[in-house]
Order: sequence, then C-alpha cells, then structure tokens
Amino acid sequence: MKARVTVTLKNGVLDPQGKAIEGALGSLGFSGVNGVRQGKVFDIELTATDADAAKTELEAMAARLLANTVIENYRVEIVG
Amino acid sequence: MKARVTVTLKNGVLDPQGKAIEGALGSLGFSGVNGVRQGKVFDIELTATDADAAKTELEAMAARLLANTVIENYRVEIVG
Repeated sequence: MKARVTVTLKNGVLDPQGKAIEGALGSLGFSGVNGVRQGKVFDIELTATDADAAKTELEAMAARLLANTVIENYRVEIVG
Repeated sequence: MKARVTVTLKNGVLDPQGKAIEGALGSLGFSGVNGVRQGKVFDIELTATDADAAKTELEAMAARLLANTVIENYRVEIVG
C-alpha cells in the first residue's frame, strides 16, 4: 500500500525559505506571486493491507517523527 | 488563487534522506515500512484568476526554479 504524508508549516509560522523562493520567482520575471510556503512530502510504501489501520499507523509516524507538531501540520492520504 | 506544486525524486534516483527516515521509523517500532521517499511541496498564492493561464505559469516556475528536472518530477495543482 502506498501512502503520502504532507507536512506544511502552520499559519503564522515564519517561512524564510518560502520568502526567498518568492523573491527568486519575482527576479525570474514571474509577477503575480503573492506568497510561497514550502513544505515536505513523504511517499511511504507499507506492507499493511488494511487502509484504516495503515492510516492510524501513519498518523503516529507523522506525529512522532515526520512532523514537528509545534510548528507544522500534517495530512495523511492513502494513494493506492 | 491557491496552487500547490509537488516535487518528487524520479524513480531510480537515490534518496539517502528517505532511507534514513525509513531506518528511524524502524527504530521507533514502526514495522512494515518498505520504503520512504522524501519530496517537497510549494504552496503558492497567485493573483491570477484564470486557472489555465495560472497552470501554464506554474509549470514554467516548476521547470525553471522549483524542480531540478534532471532528477525530479513535478506536479501542479490548482487548489482553490
């Protein structure tokens, strides 16, 4: 089973990397960009076959290792 | 308009960071993880209102700045 965990910064948390990308896009001539926030994505291959159990396990992985829940949100999806 | 660009490593490209995460998950007691690949996600806020034009612009941003197309794939979505 394949799953994807997406980790993004919470609202209000400063994202200097995103700001730098926004500036770089402007320098490259891409106008009309109002904001960029960078996050992470983890594509995880699991042996589990039960989607609900897998989702619970993935939530635990995200909370314990993949995301810093003080400043980041995470979202778990089963993709196939 | 909000858009998301997801950048992932192409198949066959080594991902030592993903391997490290896979090992760490194992150490934390999460068995049944067969593989982890890490990618990046960019949440971009645009002033454009035409979804097709925005998508074309985002593809150009991804190809020129956000992704290294030698080793990475990218996917563009309009999210709202």
